[in-house]
Amino acid sequence: MRLTSFTDYTLRTLLYLAANRDRLVTIQDIADLHVISKNHLMKVVYQLGLSGLVETVRGRNGGLRLAKEPKEINIGALVRSTETDFFMAECFDREADTCPLTPNCKLKHTLNDATRAFLAVLDQQTLEDMLPATGPESKPVRIMRMSAKK
Amino acid sequence: MRLTSFTDYTLRTLLYLAANRDRLVTIQDIADLHVISKNHLMKVVYQLGLSGLVETVRGRNGGLRLAKEPKEINIGALVRSTETDFFMAECFDREADTCPLTPNCKLKHTLNDATRAFLAVLDQQTLEDMLPATGPESKPVRIMRMSAKK
Repeated sequence: MRLTSFTDYTLRTLLYLAANRDRLVTIQDIADLHVISKNHLMKVVYQLGLSGLVETVRGRNGGLRLAKEPKEINIGALVRSTETDFFMAECFDREADTCPLTPNCKLKHTLNDATRAFLAVLDQQTLEDMLPATGPESKPVRIMRMSAKK
Repeated sequence: MRLTSFTDYTLRTLLYLAANRDRLVTIQDIADLHVISKNHLMKVVYQLGLSGLVETVRGRNGGLRLAKEPKEINIGALVRSTETDFFMAECFDREADTCPLTPNCKLKHTLNDATRAFLAVLDQQTLEDMLPATGPESKPVRIMRMSAKK
């Protein structure tokens, strides 16, 4: 069971922006850091812009920044918006479903309950909750740049 | 978010066997019914045999049947055994992980909690619970054969 890479990159982009609120971040920064495709990341950032979570500052020294406070960004709502679907088995997809058991089967109902339990945990968390503790005892966040994938 | 097709086919194979306990079922029956690859299904059945959930009767009129009572087959345990992993994001995979936030980030912990909540719901269910009610009010299970994918 996996979340889509779109959700994964969305979460990591927001985490990076939340951990670097003192400056503008470029897509290239994030692509280099995670060794992921800049092209794929552009779709993620475009969607984050549309949903009002990230804003872009244009110009030579431009870049991205969070448009909301991390505590205002709910992880459950975010994952619901970035996952294409929660089709846990073929019977969730009416167009693809060929299973003759579907009308009476209780599997779909059970998988729906399980998915709701998964999302309920995420609903209790915000982006702020994901960040490292900032108390005097906590270690600083270390952001090291990896070799870029050109 | 999706389960693998391997889990999906495993669940459907077991559901079909549980709904047809009065006869031996062939892999071809299940492949035709769900319009899925017989080759892929053979891997599913092989694994079900290894785990002691299904037994094969050899010979001309041979076939498959459940080797355990449906109420003895726990859905949570089954899904844990058929899913390759529960890597909800790249940071779950130590070999692939390049994220510099991982050591301090709380996302992985939260996604782990959510996955545990998902599986806890499935742990409460057995294969028997997935089957249609067999009381006098319930509709009979209708198994219609689809045109086969040759």
